[in-house]
Amino acid sequence: MTDTPADRLARQMAFLVEADRLKEIFRQTLNSQSRRQENDAEHSWALCLFVMTLAEHANAPVDVLRVLKMLLIHDLVEIDAGDTFAYDTSRMADQHEREARAADRIFGLLPEDQAHEFRALWDEFEAKTTPEARFASAVDRMQPMLLNCLTEGAAWRKHGITRERILERNAHIAEGSRRLWEYASTMVEQAVAAGHVPAK
Amino acid sequence: MTDTPADRLARQMAFLVEADRLKEIFRQTLNSQSRRQENDAEHSWALCLFVMTLAEHANAPVDVLRVLKMLLIHDLVEIDAGDTFAYDTSRMADQHEREARAADRIFGLLPEDQAHEFRALWDEFEAKTTPEARFASAVDRMQPMLLNCLTEGAAWRKHGITRERILERNAHIAEGSRRLWEYASTMVEQAVAAGHVPAK
Repeated sequence: MTDTPADRLARQMAFLVEADRLKEIFRQTLNSQSRRQENDAEHSWALCLFVMTLAEHANAPVDVLRVLKMLLIHDLVEIDAGDTFAYDTSRMADQHEREARAADRIFGLLPEDQAHEFRALWDEFEAKTTPEARFASAVDRMQPMLLNCLTEGAAWRKHGITRERILERNAHIAEGSRRLWEYASTMVEQAVAAGHVPAK
Repeated sequence: MTDTPADRLARQMAFLVEADRLKEIFRQTLNSQSRRQENDAEHSWALCLFVMTLAEHANAPVDVLRVLKMLLIHDLVEIDAGDTFAYDTSRMADQHEREARAADRIFGLLPEDQAHEFRALWDEFEAKTTPEARFASAVDRMQPMLLNCLTEGAAWRKHGITRERILERNAHIAEGSRRLWEYASTMVEQAVAAGHVPAK
């Protein structure tokens, strides 16, 4: 039996109501102006604007629509699983398992065809093997680096993250865009030179 | 003389740094969970997720990528011009003029070709004549209605907005999607029946 448009819309709206919770998931990074913690909804918007603006710098041509879709939904799993700080290796151990359970529940609110589509996009993002996922992931790493540099390394200093760890944890930006990695690593060196990040 | 990729990237990053201010533009609508005011960055993300989820309900087939690009940038002008509440007819008088000046400045930070592209998208959104702009505009109106209904009509009650004005101000949702307008107007009737919105 096929769902009617009204049935589909009811499920889609239930999903969108649930997704509103993303605005309450706060990250370690501070916004450049108010210096309050960024939330996942703001972060997701920022990443999409980065992609729309910077797509020409991807190593390989990318399907911009697929990159945007991936980034619009990539953090929804954190509604259940919470945000995992990029340098928190202990919480990272079971991160994928926690997030995969969340993906089942949250995308499962949608009509079945869309549940599959959204889940496939999330899986693609997580696997980081396609040019689209690599570019999405590059931007997902570069944007918090920019905010950190604009806030005198606030989140890095709070957690004692050194230049060495920043460069090591984010080097895979180059797999999506060598040009963005060059820009981002130069930003970090400038933050070190300005005394905002310890070298070691 | 053509810009080098590094020149382009420098201008693009200046634009993205400026765009971070969108997170500090607060709207009248409250988020469903924390009941704090929604900001424009969260709102822009939410609209894009609505489009990704609800595009099948547009009256005419739409180029989803163009709708998403429009919505990612449609509120950037509010960095200079501020948010204009949808029911504030006095501030609406010079709204387009204030926003057009902001568009010149903010999109002008980008490399010239992108400044033109982003401005054309914003002009298309404002003109509301293409199927893409009509659907984008429908979603831009429907999403705050949903948040209002999820918060017992908070923003409407605060400003004394009646059922009649809500239905009148938002009826053009039907130009983008008759199905979404049917859903939204039913939501409003339910809010009236629940005593969250005065009928007159």
